[in-house]
Amino acid sequence: MRQSELYTKTRKTLPKDEVANNAKLLLKAGFIHKEMAGVYSYLPLGLRVLKKIENVLREEMNAIGGQEILMSSLQDPQIWKKTNRWSDKEIDIWFKTRDEKYGLANTHEDPITNQMKQYISSYKDLPVYAYQFQNKFRNEPRAKSGLLRAREFIMKDLYSFHETSEDQEAFYEKIKGVYMKIFRRVGIGMTTYLTFASGQPFSQYSHEFQTVCSSGEDTIYLDAKKRIAVNKEVYSITTLKSLGLRKSDLQELKAIEVGNIFKLGTKYSAPLNLTYKDRKGEEKYVVMGSYGIGLGRLMAAVVEVTADANGLIWPAVIAPFAVHLIELKKGAAASFYNKLRAKKIDVLYDDREISAGEKLKDTDLIGIPVRLIMSEKTGGKVEFKKRTSRTAQLLTQDEIIRKSL
Amino acid sequence: MRQSELYTKTRKTLPKDEVANNAKLLLKAGFIHKEMAGVYSYLPLGLRVLKKIENVLREEMNAIGGQEILMSSLQDPQIWKKTNRWSDKEIDIWFKTRDEKYGLANTHEDPITNQMKQYISSYKDLPVYAYQFQNKFRNEPRAKSGLLRAREFIMKDLYSFHETSEDQEAFYEKIKGVYMKIFRRVGIGMTTYLTFASGQPFSQYSHEFQTVCSSGEDTIYLDAKKRIAVNKEVYSITTLKSLGLRKSDLQELKAIEVGNIFKLGTKYSAPLNLTYKDRKGEEKYVVMGSYGIGLGRLMAAVVEVTADANGLIWPAVIAPFAVHLIELKKGAAASFYNKLRAKKIDVLYDDREISAGEKLKDTDLIGIPVRLIMSEKTGGKVEFKKRTSRTAQLLTQDEIIRKSL
Repeated sequence: MRQSELYTKTRKTLPKDEVANNAKLLLKAGFIHKEMAGVYSYLPLGLRVLKKIENVLREEMNAIGGQEILMSSLQDPQIWKKTNRWSDKEIDIWFKTRDEKYGLANTHEDPITNQMKQYISSYKDLPVYAYQFQNKFRNEPRAKSGLLRAREFIMKDLYSFHETSEDQEAFYEKIKGVYMKIFRRVGIGMTTYLTFASGQPFSQYSHEFQTVCSSGEDTIYLDAKKRIAVNKEVYSITTLKSLGLRKSDLQELKAIEVGNIFKLGTKYSAPLNLTYKDRKGEEKYVVMGSYGIGLGRLMAAVVEVTADANGLIWPAVIAPFAVHLIELKKGAAASFYNKLRAKKIDVLYDDREISAGEKLKDTDLIGIPVRLIMSEKTGGKVEFKKRTSRTAQLLTQDEIIRKSL
Repeated sequence: MRQSELYTKTRKTLPKDEVANNAKLLLKAGFIHKEMAGVYSYLPLGLRVLKKIENVLREEMNAIGGQEILMSSLQDPQIWKKTNRWSDKEIDIWFKTRDEKYGLANTHEDPITNQMKQYISSYKDLPVYAYQFQNKFRNEPRAKSGLLRAREFIMKDLYSFHETSEDQEAFYEKIKGVYMKIFRRVGIGMTTYLTFASGQPFSQYSHEFQTVCSSGEDTIYLDAKKRIAVNKEVYSITTLKSLGLRKSDLQELKAIEVGNIFKLGTKYSAPLNLTYKDRKGEEKYVVMGSYGIGLGRLMAAVVEVTADANGLIWPAVIAPFAVHLIELKKGAAASFYNKLRAKKIDVLYDDREISAGEKLKDTDLIGIPVRLIMSEKTGGKVEFKKRTSRTAQLLTQDEIIRKSL
């Protein structure tokens, strides 16, 4: 697209209350707009990144047999009363409507368990893997970390339904691998670790995926060799022993929780009476698991890990555009822009009539992985530079196209 | 996909309070799940239809220069107080949180006007066309019409920002054509009419798009020759005169409002102080328009218009699958299923071990536009029948593939 037509612009002033680096950079570069503390809207560039993250997640969910659905944000108190989770004493971040006739989804375990009563009655109906991309609303007391802790955010939440705990555990192990693959694909695989965290009623530990980052809200103890970490909340001599870890091998680090997975057992199926007839004809409770990744938080984690002093740096897979084509002489890049578009290369074309200095500053801030410059100096050729590199090369148009396909 | 793996099933019993035909059929066929009165979740088949509708809308919005964004559902009361719309007396369907610190989006004119103050300051920044697919929450007193009047629903909402009323009016006229194209593409073009409805502060009338249907909530007076209608709410001798319509040419009909478009003038830009410097350097208020289509309502309208006594009938463009392949002998269609998939034909393969009668009943209920049967009788050939047709043909596999591509 032509940058002259993009309605957002980079900005210098920021909302006074914004302190998180991820939100500051995304606001400056025109990816998001701040509505209120902890509430953000996605602008065209930001939504492009969000949709690319969504597509990576969708591919990985479909590959393991996930079926995509979309549950409502308004939720029925009657269901939550059955699981004893409607009270603000049980869940302290509830958003409820004034008449308390509706809760705003802070998660979807309870309604999906209730829904499955319609579709699961026999072992023949199991397993079921259902997932969605849907808003969660959480009235976080502190919302100072930008997209890392928003009061409204889109989550990819997967729910699994099984005959036995063994089946759920096998799927849970599989998901560990899928999650690491997702974090590798979006560019934070090297710094993301499987982490033991506090357990659920049906398991001693749950697992998180923690991305090491100085601005993280969590503290982990990492065994870098084994690529395993322990969340501070369960860090103790007993824990280390049970996991076969040694205190001397661990580093204390700040980290961002980018995903978590749970063995739910029959925590929801029992109170909501989700049962199935097993192979012997006996009525049993369905065994469940749930597996979450917050899309905005993942985007923010990528920003926190990859950005430099000049701005954002997007991994190619989730970049808003593949290349940023910048002309430093009016019209110099117009015909090459059309060539790139004809080849279906996703290009942002800076055709604005502003100074070269402003253009170069903006492209670093926006962080598209490849910068292409055409000017008086480059003739018909193109200056190619990666956002992460200090040096540029002068290449022919065909060479650029071959590199970009 | 294999139907044996689809977790939903067709169902016979319905929630007691469900009276709308669209919701009854979509519930029976396993497209939606009812959470509460007026609140529905989309199941795998329903979400496929919703996404296809979304794609049609996205293509048409992008074609006119629309830039996709995603605004938050939680909204800031301070903005709505400035437009004098926070009070329940002004908007009687508000959902607000208990502490009234947040409103749940019933529309997005107010926050997008506020957001644009960041990006619009000169005539050079205009026009801007921004759209989104985002939830709206409306506490409707009566929610008895299924997806036609839900308390939570996804809307495609487009907002336009212009220098002058003339510019907005020209765009408004263009949108009329785009909307009719959308309704044609999703299969209700023949029965959908541009309709004059009650105006806004800055225009005598607004325009709706009404789909004629006996279950519609609205009453319109249609001049079928001119393909123009008048909503009962503005129907009067004066109106007819001003529009050049004659009472004797009009039929009174029930209809469903599937879209509406508004000339907003400076209704929002004035109180929120969204201004721009014009070509003479004078500060002026931005002139706005807004243009909505509810996705669930559109889906429900298609159902109400097209369904027959046996079930749903999807137009090909928004059908959950292109073809429904049914085997009446175990394994008879497995290799053809793989062939269709290799050709990227979107196929639901009924490989379930249930009776032929149940399969044939289900395929009519689900309403995929093409039914393909393979049985003992058909040999290597395939029985081809359109959902809308009474007669079937026996075709070779290659003939089917050629027809389906």
